[in-house]
Amino acid sequence: MKGLGELIDKLKKLDSIKMYNEDFLLTWEKSQEEIEAVLTVADILRNLRENNISTKVFDSGLAISQFRDNSTRTRFSFSSAANMLGLTVADLDEGKSQIAHGETVRETSNMISFMADVIGIRDDMYIGKGNTYMREVSKAVQEGFQDGVLEQRPTLVNLQCDIDHPTQSMADLLHIVNYFGGIENLKGKKLAMTWAYSPSYGKPLSVPQGIIALMTRMGMEVTLAHPEGYELMPEVIEIAKENAARSGGKFEMTTFMQDAFKDADIVYPKSWAPFKAMERRTDLYGNGDFDGIKCLEKELLAQNASHKDWECTEEMMLLTKNAQTLYMHCLPADITGVSCKEGEVSASVFDRYRVELYKEAGFKPYIIAAMMFLSKVENPVEIIEKLIENSTPRFFK
Amino acid sequence: MKGLGELIDKLKKLDSIKMYNEDFLLTWEKSQEEIEAVLTVADILRNLRENNISTKVFDSGLAISQFRDNSTRTRFSFSSAANMLGLTVADLDEGKSQIAHGETVRETSNMISFMADVIGIRDDMYIGKGNTYMREVSKAVQEGFQDGVLEQRPTLVNLQCDIDHPTQSMADLLHIVNYFGGIENLKGKKLAMTWAYSPSYGKPLSVPQGIIALMTRMGMEVTLAHPEGYELMPEVIEIAKENAARSGGKFEMTTFMQDAFKDADIVYPKSWAPFKAMERRTDLYGNGDFDGIKCLEKELLAQNASHKDWECTEEMMLLTKNAQTLYMHCLPADITGVSCKEGEVSASVFDRYRVELYKEAGFKPYIIAAMMFLSKVENPVEIIEKLIENSTPRFFK
Amino acid sequence: MKGLGELIDKLKKLDSIKMYNEDFLLTWEKSQEEIEAVLTVADILRNLRENNISTKVFDSGLAISQFRDNSTRTRFSFSSAANMLGLTVADLDEGKSQIAHGETVRETSNMISFMADVIGIRDDMYIGKGNTYMREVSKAVQEGFQDGVLEQRPTLVNLQCDIDHPTQSMADLLHIVNYFGGIENLKGKKLAMTWAYSPSYGKPLSVPQGIIALMTRMGMEVTLAHPEGYELMPEVIEIAKENAARSGGKFEMTTFMQDAFKDADIVYPKSWAPFKAMERRTDLYGNGDFDGIKCLEKELLAQNASHKDWECTEEMMLLTKNAQTLYMHCLPADITGVSCKEGEVSASVFDRYRVELYKEAGFKPYIIAAMMFLSKVENPVEIIEKLIENSTPRFFK
Repeated sequence: MKGLGELIDKLKKLDSIKMYNEDFLLTWEKSQEEIEAVLTVADILRNLRENNISTKVFDSGLAISQFRDNSTRTRFSFSSAANMLGLTVADLDEGKSQIAHGETVRETSNMISFMADVIGIRDDMYIGKGNTYMREVSKAVQEGFQDGVLEQRPTLVNLQCDIDHPTQSMADLLHIVNYFGGIENLKGKKLAMTWAYSPSYGKPLSVPQGIIALMTRMGMEVTLAHPEGYELMPEVIEIAKENAARSGGKFEMTTFMQDAFKDADIVYPKSWAPFKAMERRTDLYGNGDFDGIKCLEKELLAQNASHKDWECTEEMMLLTKNAQTLYMHCLPADITGVSCKEGEVSASVFDRYRVELYKEAGFKPYIIAAMMFLSKVENPVEIIEKLIENSTPRFFK
Repeated sequence: MKGLGELIDKLKKLDSIKMYNEDFLLTWEKSQEEIEAVLTVADILRNLRENNISTKVFDSGLAISQFRDNSTRTRFSFSSAANMLGLTVADLDEGKSQIAHGETVRETSNMISFMADVIGIRDDMYIGKGNTYMREVSKAVQEGFQDGVLEQRPTLVNLQCDIDHPTQSMADLLHIVNYFGGIENLKGKKLAMTWAYSPSYGKPLSVPQGIIALMTRMGMEVTLAHPEGYELMPEVIEIAKENAARSGGKFEMTTFMQDAFKDADIVYPKSWAPFKAMERRTDLYGNGDFDGIKCLEKELLAQNASHKDWECTEEMMLLTKNAQTLYMHCLPADITGVSCKEGEVSASVFDRYRVELYKEAGFKPYIIAAMMFLSKVENPVEIIEKLIENSTPRFFK
Repeated sequence: MKGLGELIDKLKKLDSIKMYNEDFLLTWEKSQEEIEAVLTVADILRNLRENNISTKVFDSGLAISQFRDNSTRTRFSFSSAANMLGLTVADLDEGKSQIAHGETVRETSNMISFMADVIGIRDDMYIGKGNTYMREVSKAVQEGFQDGVLEQRPTLVNLQCDIDHPTQSMADLLHIVNYFGGIENLKGKKLAMTWAYSPSYGKPLSVPQGIIALMTRMGMEVTLAHPEGYELMPEVIEIAKENAARSGGKFEMTTFMQDAFKDADIVYPKSWAPFKAMERRTDLYGNGDFDGIKCLEKELLAQNASHKDWECTEEMMLLTKNAQTLYMHCLPADITGVSCKEGEVSASVFDRYRVELYKEAGFKPYIIAAMMFLSKVENPVEIIEKLIENSTPRFFK
């Protein structure tokens, strides 16, 4: 990580004013400068905390969390980020059926937001639903603010939806920025985003989608590899292509894991569900066809089982550029012989990268805090300088 | 809302010293000056927050919440209120059967209160139980304090019981005070508290009871309307009558919705369960007669279904005083064609009042905070003046 | 409780530096001076709070709690302790099966600890498991810290395991220190730690084990009484024997409740499960033999029922030293005729000691806070003196 002065100088040059009072829902809705502002603020917040300088910009206030799917790591990252800025988490633990139609989303969104500064939502279960839901909430609180119902407009952070997982991909990006010594060093680096076998078949698409859409902006050469039938959402593929073209990077697709691993600087092997099947599942769920869902699951498990060779083994790693090649994962990984019989990665590869993997995850609280910070603070540089000037100890020791 | 200076001047004239170290369980246990002190402090706290002045009077401390029934809005209001004053919420998530006899209520109440400054309880499920339970808790912590077990006496806030829903009725009152431009303007205003049809039959009586008991104190002309069989608790009817007589207002009852709506300035149409049936249900529950409960529910649903004409339609609204007539509801409402096939209110009426309804709900966090504030702070005016003098920013921006 | 100056003078003389950055897992891993430092800091924190002086040493930060068993009192004590020091509780509410093998304990421990200052764990369900689990977590976060994954090393507090219940036994100790007017007055006091009948048969052994291991260090004469078959873990018996020998106290065992009560200054009658049976239960559980568990439970209940005479009655109390003899319990107690038909203690005995019992429980939040404080603060005396110098009000009144 660069020094604090250098980081602040960098932030001064980045135009992030449009993030003020805005949500963070998809990385590709943000400019390159805004993306870099998030990375820079995350590094600054970490730097301050490591130097025992309080980063509390809120004396009181609520950070609402809504997890429509189980979560441990994102939950703790969100709690950490809120706490670091002085916000108290209030969790909306809804029954799944309660928020069913637009009417109630509008109402509930306002009812929980009277003193909410930020809202974090995870909703990644059904294709076409999660991001749509977040936009409904966003519209509701925007209207509530304009109508004088809400004193402040809470800003949203997408904690994972059906399309993107921006807090994950941004944490991953910050990890490789730090690993390779600067964002400028990512240009031309080869990243393999590949499918991998897991005994559970229905993992979200948002991680690979988030990765290909974000990393292609950094001038990286991104290869997406997966067996036939495991296509991602076509619109995200288009975004990855456009981003690569614009940044001078590359975006390629293959159905051979080996092709992607060849000479890679970074490999990111991870299971995900086939998009088309997830669409069918959403429809079946919408129709309440639970027998249909069971049938589909059986079919998917069989399809899945035919690709057990998609594993990140030591042999596969030999194909990559060199011993410094970085193995990445959003965790938890399905580790062969450890968490399952046959999985995404062999135990020896995972073990070798454990510390790096944990560090990768450690960026997430700071990324979330940076997203919150830039959406709430109008003059980030000024406030950061004030925090440094005050130097209130985080821990009075 | 009046200006801050005017509000503080008003508060200076109000005697609220008896609220210090006392619970807030029923509005009719409080004097008119105390009621107005709560409204005034709520307005002051809102004013301070809107001006980014911290209202934290606690550096640390716990606000215990106990929800013996599901809750979203009251839960968030309580969290907001606690947070605004600097308290951290600790939720007592009890198994229903654990706190079964006086012995354990006494013990549990002390065990959770070692560092508790306030306790908020919602217990509205069974007639004759909720308020009784709150008084048991209150007695237990009072004794604990006197015996030297507790360093401070946590004060209770009734977040809804079988008899009253003071945080709701007080938020409703503050809403109409603001809507009509001052508490002095409520004199002579006609309010229709009427039953309305909902497909679910067992809603608490505490809202209508709270409304008729509180609004009759303001010199308002309150009409209570419901079909035969939907009587409220007789003792609350008596209180409403006495209050009306004392305040120079009126309290009338009718079994025709139209009578109540006629020339009304405010209408509050809302479903509730028949009191006698709720009493029977409490007995059946006490005897563990779950078959009896099922039978009773069937009977009640049939009775209910014969009153589908009790709906707040546009046609009904034409009976009211004028276009400024205020439609109120504690939310969520059963909206015809939106949240149910046939409900309490037609969609067009609800839609027209949506912003006002959301604003109505927005007063609740401040009302709860004001109740906490007046029960914990011995010299409210002095402390408010100190908060203004310090002017610690709520959000450091 | 002694005066603040006296307490600080005492703390100055106690060497507790080895507690810095260390866990608190078993009282017998701590020196006598460290034990006394915890008691002294607990008294100091209570003194400060009673004098409305803030004890917040953290401006922000998380206290992670992990309750692998239900808990009300310890949960609230932990929340209170964290709040008092300025930490926000984040609860890890794990599915029991998720953290199943070493791999994932290591990973989860790191994932929740990026901003964790302390971790409190309760895991008392299976013999041989709880303490082992805590040490795995401790090792994981220690490694995470050394590897640069974690910025700080969260320290652990054992909130009850299969072997010891240090926050309970230390709170109990502080209670008797205060009751008898000083730790120096415990020398020679006779304490009866006896088994008592309860209709539920499987209560943890950690309380009696914690008591005999800790109280024998104070020069007390500790008698452990239980029916045959209700032996405690042999290694803890050894520790109690050694401690008694070293401190000049006594440690005796008997299978007659009366022997233990005879001339006792303190009686602690409490049900616990037979250790050997608990070991068998752990094995059955490990093998997934749920029929075996059911059989074992039936057997244990029958064995249990043959010892209904092990009750702390008024008659039994007559055997003790005098009217000042202290009855203790970790609560909740099984009270004959109140919480069960036949239980650990008769209602009249319990009632007579209710206030003392509640006070006993009231020491726990301070004990936990003191354990956290001494593990996080390098110079406890200096920081306490700064807190007093600053004298930030806990409640701004």
